[in-house]
This record gives sequence, C-alpha cells and structure tokens, in this order.
Amino acid sequence: ESRGRLLVKCPDKPGIVSVLSTFLYSHNSNIMESSQYSSNPENGTFFIRIEYHCDGLLAKSEQMEKDFEEIAANHSMEYEFAYPNERKRSAIFVSKEPHCLMELLWEWQNGDLDTNIVIVISNHEDARPFVEALGIPFHYIPANKDIRKQVEAEQIRLMAEYEVDLLILARYMQILTPDFVNHFESRIINIHHSFLPAFIGVGPYERAFERGVKLIGATSHYVTNNLDEGPIIEQDVERVDHRDDVIELKKIGRQIERRVLVRAVKWHLENRIIVECNKTILFH
Amino acid sequence: ESRGRLLVKCPDKPGIVSVLSTFLYSHNSNIMESSQYSSNPENGTFFIRIEYHCDGLLAKSEQMEKDFEEIAANHSMEYEFAYPNERKRSAIFVSKEPHCLMELLWEWQNGDLDTNIVIVISNHEDARPFVEALGIPFHYIPANKDIRKQVEAEQIRLMAEYEVDLLILARYMQILTPDFVNHFESRIINIHHSFLPAFIGVGPYERAFERGVKLIGATSHYVTNNLDEGPIIEQDVERVDHRDDVIELKKIGRQIERRVLVRAVKWHLENRIIVECNKTILFH
Amino acid sequence: ESRGRLLVKCPDKPGIVSVLSTFLYSHNSNIMESSQYSSNPENGTFFIRIEYHCDGLLAKSEQMEKDFEEIAANHSMEYEFAYPNERKRSAIFVSKEPHCLMELLWEWQNGDLDTNIVIVISNHEDARPFVEALGIPFHYIPANKDIRKQVEAEQIRLMAEYEVDLLILARYMQILTPDFVNHFESRIINIHHSFLPAFIGVGPYERAFERGVKLIGATSHYVTNNLDEGPIIEQDVERVDHRDDVIELKKIGRQIERRVLVRAVKWHLENRIIVECNKTILFH
Amino acid sequence: ESRGRLLVKCPDKPGIVSVLSTFLYSHNSNIMESSQYSSNPENGTFFIRIEYHCDGLLAKSEQMEKDFEEIAANHSMEYEFAYPNERKRSAIFVSKEPHCLMELLWEWQNGDLDTNIVIVISNHEDARPFVEALGIPFHYIPANKDIRKQVEAEQIRLMAEYEVDLLILARYMQILTPDFVNHFESRIINIHHSFLPAFIGVGPYERAFERGVKLIGATSHYVTNNLDEGPIIEQDVERVDHRDDVIELKKIGRQIERRVLVRAVKWHLENRIIVECNKTILFH
Repeated sequence: ESRGRLLVKCPDKPGIVSVLSTFLYSHNSNIMESSQYSSNPENGTFFIRIEYHCDGLLAKSEQMEKDFEEIAANHSMEYEFAYPNERKRSAIFVSKEPHCLMELLWEWQNGDLDTNIVIVISNHEDARPFVEALGIPFHYIPANKDIRKQVEAEQIRLMAEYEVDLLILARYMQILTPDFVNHFESRIINIHHSFLPAFIGVGPYERAFERGVKLIGATSHYVTNNLDEGPIIEQDVERVDHRDDVIELKKIGRQIERRVLVRAVKWHLENRIIVECNKTILFH
Repeated sequence: ESRGRLLVKCPDKPGIVSVLSTFLYSHNSNIMESSQYSSNPENGTFFIRIEYHCDGLLAKSEQMEKDFEEIAANHSMEYEFAYPNERKRSAIFVSKEPHCLMELLWEWQNGDLDTNIVIVISNHEDARPFVEALGIPFHYIPANKDIRKQVEAEQIRLMAEYEVDLLILARYMQILTPDFVNHFESRIINIHHSFLPAFIGVGPYERAFERGVKLIGATSHYVTNNLDEGPIIEQDVERVDHRDDVIELKKIGRQIERRVLVRAVKWHLENRIIVECNKTILFH
Repeated sequence: ESRGRLLVKCPDKPGIVSVLSTFLYSHNSNIMESSQYSSNPENGTFFIRIEYHCDGLLAKSEQMEKDFEEIAANHSMEYEFAYPNERKRSAIFVSKEPHCLMELLWEWQNGDLDTNIVIVISNHEDARPFVEALGIPFHYIPANKDIRKQVEAEQIRLMAEYEVDLLILARYMQILTPDFVNHFESRIINIHHSFLPAFIGVGPYERAFERGVKLIGATSHYVTNNLDEGPIIEQDVERVDHRDDVIELKKIGRQIERRVLVRAVKWHLENRIIVECNKTILFH
Repeated sequence: ESRGRLLVKCPDKPGIVSVLSTFLYSHNSNIMESSQYSSNPENGTFFIRIEYHCDGLLAKSEQMEKDFEEIAANHSMEYEFAYPNERKRSAIFVSKEPHCLMELLWEWQNGDLDTNIVIVISNHEDARPFVEALGIPFHYIPANKDIRKQVEAEQIRLMAEYEVDLLILARYMQILTPDFVNHFESRIINIHHSFLPAFIGVGPYERAFERGVKLIGATSHYVTNNLDEGPIIEQDVERVDHRDDVIELKKIGRQIERRVLVRAVKWHLENRIIVECNKTILFH
C-alpha cells in the first residue's frame, strides 16, 4: 500500500540527508522512521534507512525510482527501494531438530513474520506433517556429503522454481558448498548453536560443557563461504551451571536458538540490516 | 568545539526533515546522528534529535540560532540548541547511603560523565571526606519535615549561587515540596529503589520481600509533584530468590540503583531525552 | 521406576538432616539432589526437598512411607512423597490468545513437560483443531459472568472426571469464584501479563504504555482468592521503548508470558515449589 | 564465632549425607545451608558444601576436625573446614586500569567483601593515592618481560611476608610464569575482558569490534598455566551494536568486568567454589 523503505550507502559528506529528505518531500512522502550511521566522521561511509509514507505509492513508485537515479549517480549511492506490501518469499531448510522451524511457522501463522513461506526442504521426513498441515510445500531431499552436488542442484532448482528471496537455515546440519552460497549472497540466514566466535564448527554444546562456561548462547548470521564467520545479525545467551549436562544445555540452547533466529529473520524482512565489511549495521 | 545538537518538537507533516537537514547543510553542518519519532502517523507530534558537526561552530552558533527562528516559527517548532562543550552544571543531593553518589563521582572522575559536578548537598556529614577530596564543595544541610521550608530555601539559594542546570537525587531521602520541584521542572532526576510502578513510596525492598517477588528493580525518573509518578527514564532488574532477606535485597538493589541512575544522567547530559505527556522519548 | 522425592516442612532444630538422610540410607536410597532452607536461624521453619534413587522403589515405596510416619510424628513434620513416574494429570484453561497453550503443548510434545495433559477447556472454539490434532480432549464451555456458577460446576465436574492434579490458566480471561479456587488450592497456576505487583488487574499492557515503563514483564503465580495476589512462582521482563505501542507491547509480552508460564509449570511438576505464607520457596 | 563450613569431595555412594549430618548433629551443630552435586549417578564423584551453626565453635573446632579424620579416611574424603571469622588475606595486582581495583575496594569498604585486603601491588604508580588513603600498603614493582624473574621473586616474597591466601588479578596485564602460578594453585583469580573461550589472549575488545559481535562479555577464572584456559567462575555480557567503537566497547566492558570479578571473589571467600577437572562447581 502506502509504505516504502529506502536504504542508501554512499561516501559521507554534508548534505546527504538534505538531498534524500528533499527528494522524498518533493514526492509527497512523509518520513516515518529514519536511522543513519557513519563509519567515520571523516571520509567515512554513510548509511541510512528511511521508512516513508506516501499516499498512492503503488502507482508512483516506478517514477520515484526513476527520478532517484540521477541523485544516486551524483552522490555515488548504492541504494535499494523496498515495499513491505511486496512480501519476500522465504524457504526454510531444516534437518532433524524442529524447534527453530516450529518457531518460525508459529510466528508466521500469528501474522508476526512478514513473509510468504513458500517451501520447506529437509533431509529428514520428520517435519512433513505439520508443514503440510499449514499448506506449505514440503520437499524431502536426503543428503550426505557424497551426494552434495546433486542435492544442491535440486535445491537450487527448487529455489528458482519457488522464486525464493530469503533462505533460512533453521538448524540445517549439512554444509553448503561455495557454489551454493554464491547463488544466494547475503540472502541466507543461519542459526549457529553457540555464542560465536566461541565454539565455531561442530558440537558446540559438547564443547561448552567441556569448557565449563557459565553462559551458553546462539548466533544468527548471514552465511558466507567461511564457516560460521559470516556477518553476525543477533546473539543471545542464557545462564547455565555445573549441574547442566549436555542434554540440558541443548534444551536451554533450543530456547535461545528459537528467539535469536526469529529476531534476525524479522529484521531482514523489515530491511533493517545492511552488511558492510563482514559486519551488520542494524537499524532498530 | 565543533559539535552541536538540535532537538525539535512540532506538529508532524511531510517535509520537516527536509527543512531541518537543508538548514543544517546550508550552514555547512554535517549530520552525524539523527533520531526521530512521530507519536502518530496522522496528525501526530514529531520529535527529532540531530547531532551535527560544523567547523568553527563556536563562532557561528549565534547566527545559526538566529537564522533558525524563522523556520521554527513557520512550523510551530519548540526547539533547543545544545553544545557539548558547554558542559552542564550538576548538583547532587544525597542522604546516608553513598553508593549512587560514589558511582556518579567515579564515572565523572573517569571522564565518562560529561558534566561539571559543582556541589554536593547532604543532610548527613558522611560523604564529606571523599567529596571534598575530589575538590567538590560539600554542603551539610540537616533536614527534617519540620524545617523543610528553610532547608529548601537554603538549597534553592545554593542552586542559584552555583548556577546548577541539573539536580541529581542520589538516594536523597527527603520529600521535596511542590514549590521546590517547580523551580527545577524536568531538571531533577531521582533514583527510586523499586521497579515502578510497583512499590511506590517508602520501604520498597521491605515490601518486595513481603510480596515474594522474584525480580527486584530500580527506576530513574524526572521528579514531578506526583510522588514517584514522574516520567521514567530508565529501569533495570536483578533476579532474587526466597533466601534473600531484606538486607540482601538492599545489597543487590544497590547495584541496580547505581547503574540505572548513571545511565539516566548520561542520557540527560547528552540531550537524548524529550519529555512528552509524562513519558520520555529516548533517542539512543 | 527408581526415583523418589521427599519434601518436608517442620520446626527447625539440629539433627533433622541427619534423621532424614539416615532414614533414606537405611532404606537403601541414595540422595541425588538435596536443597534446604530455614526461614530463620532461631526457631525458624525448616524446609527440605530431597531427590533420591532407590533400586526397586516401586515395590518398596509403600513400606517406606509407612516407616516414615513415626519420624514425621516425632518431629512435627508436614511432608510429601512424590514419584516422577506417577505423572501428574494437567488441565489447561485458555481463552482467545493461544500462545501460552501452544508453548505448553509444544514442550509437552517434545518430552520436556513431565505431565499428562488430559483436557483443554476454553470459552472459545479457536484452539480446538490443534488440541484435538494432538489427541487431547477439548471442551468448549462458553462463559460470561452471568453464568459463572453453572460454567464452574461443569468445569469442576470435568476436573473430577479427568482426575486433574494441576490446573494451568494459560491466558484464561474469566474470573474464578472463591468456591472454584478453594477446590484446587495451590494447584492452579496462572500467568499474569505484567510484572506483579505492578499493574494488578485488567489491561496491564495498556497501563504499562500509559505509564511509560522501560521494561514490561509477566508473572506466574498460584491462584488464591485475592486477585493477582497469590504466591509468585516466576517473573521475567523485556526491554521496551517509547516507540512500542500497545500492540507491540503485547507481542513482546507474549514471548515473556510463554517462557514464564512454562518454567513455573515445570517447577511445579518437579515438586520444586513449597508455598509458605503466600510466598514460594523454590528449590532449583 | 559460631559458623563453620565443611566442604567434602569423595566417591559417591549411599549414606554419605547421613554420615556427615550425623557427625555434625553429634557435635551439636545445626546445618544452615547445604548444597551437593554428584558428577554421575553411577560411580560418580560426590561434592557437598555444608554451612553449620555451632555454639562455642571456636573452642570446639579443633576437636571436631580431629574427630572427623576417621570418617574422612573411611570414605576416602578430601575435605576442608573453613571458618568465616578467620578472614582470608587477599592481595590485589593491578596495572593501569583501576576500575576493577576500585570496585573491590568499594565493596570491601562497604563491608560486602569478607576479606582483609593486605596489599596492593602494581606496575604503575597510578593507584597509590586511593589505596594508601584506605590504609592498605601499596607496592610499586615496575615490570616487563625482561625482568619477569626478579619481579616475580619480589612478588612472591611479599605474598609470603603478608601471608596472602588469595591473589586477585584486577586487570594486571603482565603474564605470570608457570613457576609463579604453581606457588598459588587455585588461589589466583583473574578477570579476562572477553566472553571466554571467545577472544582468548590480547586485544579482546579490538577483536570483538572486528568480528562485529552483538554482545561483549567478561570472564573471571582461576589462573592455571594455560593462558585464559583456567576454570571459569563467572561470566556476564552486555549488548552492543554497530555504533560502538573500540573505546565504547571498553567502557561497556569495564562495567561487566567490575561486577564479574567481584562476584567471583565473593564466592571464593564464601568457600562456594570447588574446582574439578578444570571446571568449577559453584554452590550458591
């Protein structure tokens, strides 16, 4: 309907906000929310996220975007217009543990996750019943490292068929190849079951137990080709103690994973995240 | 030096950000940080805090403020220009318990509290040694409800003499009269030792113990003439359990009070708080 | 199987632990976990929860309980033996908002809630599909204050029919009469959508918004005949800010309510809670 | 006066609690607090901490300890009797940053740190004034890696002279040699300025900034000869965001370090910590 979002990145210099706000005003748009960040007071990079209201935006947006091109060129801007009413299309990959998938579906069903979940893919059959009960297509693609290539080919084909904008790894325990990741740069969100960079890789709860930490955590991040090294979107922790064995740590961890992944996905869907130098700028 | 802050409140309508940012740009100012809020998408009130950089601001600020008058009049703006280099002058009132005073002095000594602490007033002598050791004038004014009028007269006189901008009640246990409060509207910050609106009034830890709560808290707020009902700036809590008696609750509470009061004072000093309808808008 | 729990309350005096541990040892039981609390070092009341392992406990428990009677009499003990393998039978009451119900069902389905959910009763039909999908009987009993008596009569009949041990009010928005509450003393757990004692009664999120608090919370407590004044079992909070309207507060609040209620129910099921003087002693 | 603590570690088997509690009862001692842990239900190791009250304990403790020897031998117990009235003697090492030292002194002055701080040693002169103002001896020992041996010799000499029981590294930025550490096994508590095991070693805030984490933390641990790998006592975190540069992270971090170190030291002084297999068992 009448809401738009404009995200801009450009070299910082005086007058940028003036240019952008004057542009929006001249297109009868009222700024509802605006957040900005400059990486450095001198010669830094400037980032801004503006959410604006404009009556009849649907009819005007094409012209607005065209008019913006000259401004963008003049100030070396990278930018993106986004419209909440054009809901992003999400795919969820999951393995055996369903808690993150369930939380996403629950929030979605509730109306609190502003996306169309168009497909769920799993290397296990477990989740099929409740995914299909919600009317979402479920694809079972068995996977292991020997058949990785063909598995990913099929996954990529489905991503294309379902026109997926965002891929959510909701405790999907298979490694993705660089080729796959490159297909979806800055569009794959993973939940890692540790407080990164602690316990990168496999068995984080086992290793947290071994080390005797007093807090455990979870991290959601964009997936890059460095395992567990992608830009961090959100992290959270819970207190544990010496009595918590690995099974108990996993139970507690599931609660953290659920909420951390959902928050990250929501912020992505609201275009609140800009990735810069392997870090995220998060406009709350 | 070269940093300025502009806070504006006005009726919301398209173009305000454009007007403000164009004004700043035309005065060679670069917006470093900007946060805004509208109370309502339709016919709401608009609030904005802008932090800007301007070379040679000291010499230009007077003219800038004069130039702004017309803009403000045209858009029915209430506004304030603030300059970090003009440090606010703070007074601290304290009674027997020194932990909040100590925390403020500590942060101040550290360079983390951007104010001049010009006077400490207490109805007890306890704090004198370490206040004076820091070179801050300490005034002992014994107080009780029978001599309230003359006590406050003396306090008001000292506030004037020391040109106090901000009065911090760091566990000052005397009630202030409406007359006193009116002298310093929106310029008195108090720390209340409960999670307001729970346990308004006296003995909050005793009552928290009685009630068997599982979390205790503290609240910092601007003082108004409704006891403990002023605009809340910051709150925090800590977990407690059945083993914690009142003495233990007070110990835990002191840690909360210290950090909650310091945060509130910092935000006030950074002009991050706007009071509206007995609530605070907080631009982080 | 082989696990038992013994909860004891008695006048505090030297030797109680010795008596209890010697009793258990003499019945070939190994203490796995033990927590105690004394309300006062002098003439206080002593509370203890012991979890023990005993091979073949099923066959021996009757005799053990009989043997314990004399000890209990000698030391004026109130006590309870509980056996995890005798799972408690729970009923859930819910109105329109399903999030707390869903969280309970989810944890239960997961194997993380050690109870049999034997019946769900609601004054709305909304929850029927997913309750029945899990094979749990769902009873729709429309309710309003004019028919309270007959509604409660039907509810009490069902509680008896299903042999309910624990009644969980998962956002059930009808007031229960003293008569009903008396039927289930210390066996009804409610979730209140505020950080009690703040915002007792109706509309807590609306009132939290009005007051401008910076944290909102939820409280689970045993239901007594003083509205929202029963013994508090668990509380938690989340940070909010001026931008969060009532709808947003409710969304954030739902996350708090879910986890607070589930924690309280788990602790109850594990016999970790002793109620004393309208407060809870919680043995973690 | 009349309080004692008994810590025991032994092979787990039925009857241990009975033996201990009967022993205490027979010596007219009343158990005030008792916490236990078994590493494994079968063939595990049993740990218990008992706090007891005994009138005239001072006069009786020697005999009690002697009487306990046979029990300990019979059950292969390692054990320790501790008496709160025999206050431990603490030394604090500090480098340039005073915040952790200040917090310890503050809590100590307050009566909330149950130890005698007998000496402060620093490789900088900065802290001398406020340490000496409190009547605590301050020793300046310049340090760098070339003179490590002689520095440590002098430190060890002072530790002996002042009969130090506990050494607290309150942001002491020199590495200790294995020889030094061996002198004080399980008696050196360090504060590391990261959420271990993330960011082991130097520059944790710089590296946290680089990595773009959303929470930063601090960890207090016993010092062993594996750098930052000793048994963790306590950890905590605070939320940060993309706007926080390294200076800001350090400011936030200081608040975490202060409270984490103080908690760890308090628990040590209350004999609440047992070290086992490079982890801590913490009896709260």
